[in-house]
Amino acid sequence: MENSGQSFDPHASSLSGTAQPEVLEELYRVRSSIDNIDAALIHLLAERFKATQRVGVLKATHSLPPADPGREAAQISRLRALARDAQLDPVFAEKFLAFIIDEVIRHHEAISENIKAGGDGSPVSGEDAGDETDD
Amino acid sequence: MENSGQSFDPHASSLSGTAQPEVLEELYRVRSSIDNIDAALIHLLAERFKATQRVGVLKATHSLPPADPGREAAQISRLRALARDAQLDPVFAEKFLAFIIDEVIRHHEAISENIKAGGDGSPVSGEDAGDETDD
Repeated sequence: MENSGQSFDPHASSLSGTAQPEVLEELYRVRSSIDNIDAALIHLLAERFKATQRVGVLKATHSLPPADPGREAAQISRLRALARDAQLDPVFAEKFLAFIIDEVIRHHEAISENIKAGGDGSPVSGEDAGDETDD
Repeated sequence: MENSGQSFDPHASSLSGTAQPEVLEELYRVRSSIDNIDAALIHLLAERFKATQRVGVLKATHSLPPADPGREAAQISRLRALARDAQLDPVFAEKFLAFIIDEVIRHHEAISENIKAGGDGSPVSGEDAGDETDD
């Protein structure tokens, strides 16, 4: 079983021999912030998929369609605006949402199948199993 | 100019007429959490790209290669472990990192071109311009 951070080397780099020590020092400093941000992103994504898992069960239980174009259009427009305010490329923000929604819909299908087969929509165990659905 | 949230309807949905009111109520409740998480994700991504922008300038200034396979391998392994701890599909976490790094490298090239042309690596203005680089 993997254990977060146990064997992670924050200075892992293929550039070690190729750059001046003070440049590498600065690189590691910035990378340590990137690593902190990535940990936060992973945990937020986990929380987001818990929420979409609830949405998926709700939709499957009440035979609602997985896709919701009206919702999706509102989300895209909001995320683009938020991105602009945060000085993030709005095109990237839209691609990011599409990337997440692709994953959500992929797993929604699994939940729907599970419920049709008499289950409770819980994710199947195993590495490839997701615990998310549409939104 | 877009303004975040100004015209966002958190109840926007193509399902409005098709579901019982109490089901929609529950759907909106969960979606409001998803919307909060998405705002946090966008702001964290903006901060992450600020950091990779600094890495890109550093690398371009010191003629370091954009890719760093040793760093990337360490990141993948750490994010997979973090994902497991957070009950997120590690396969998805790896895809997510690849998605981000693709964008980062795409913009790294722009920074490198900018510096070669005598600039300071600042992002070009305009909707398609990113302010990020490798990491």
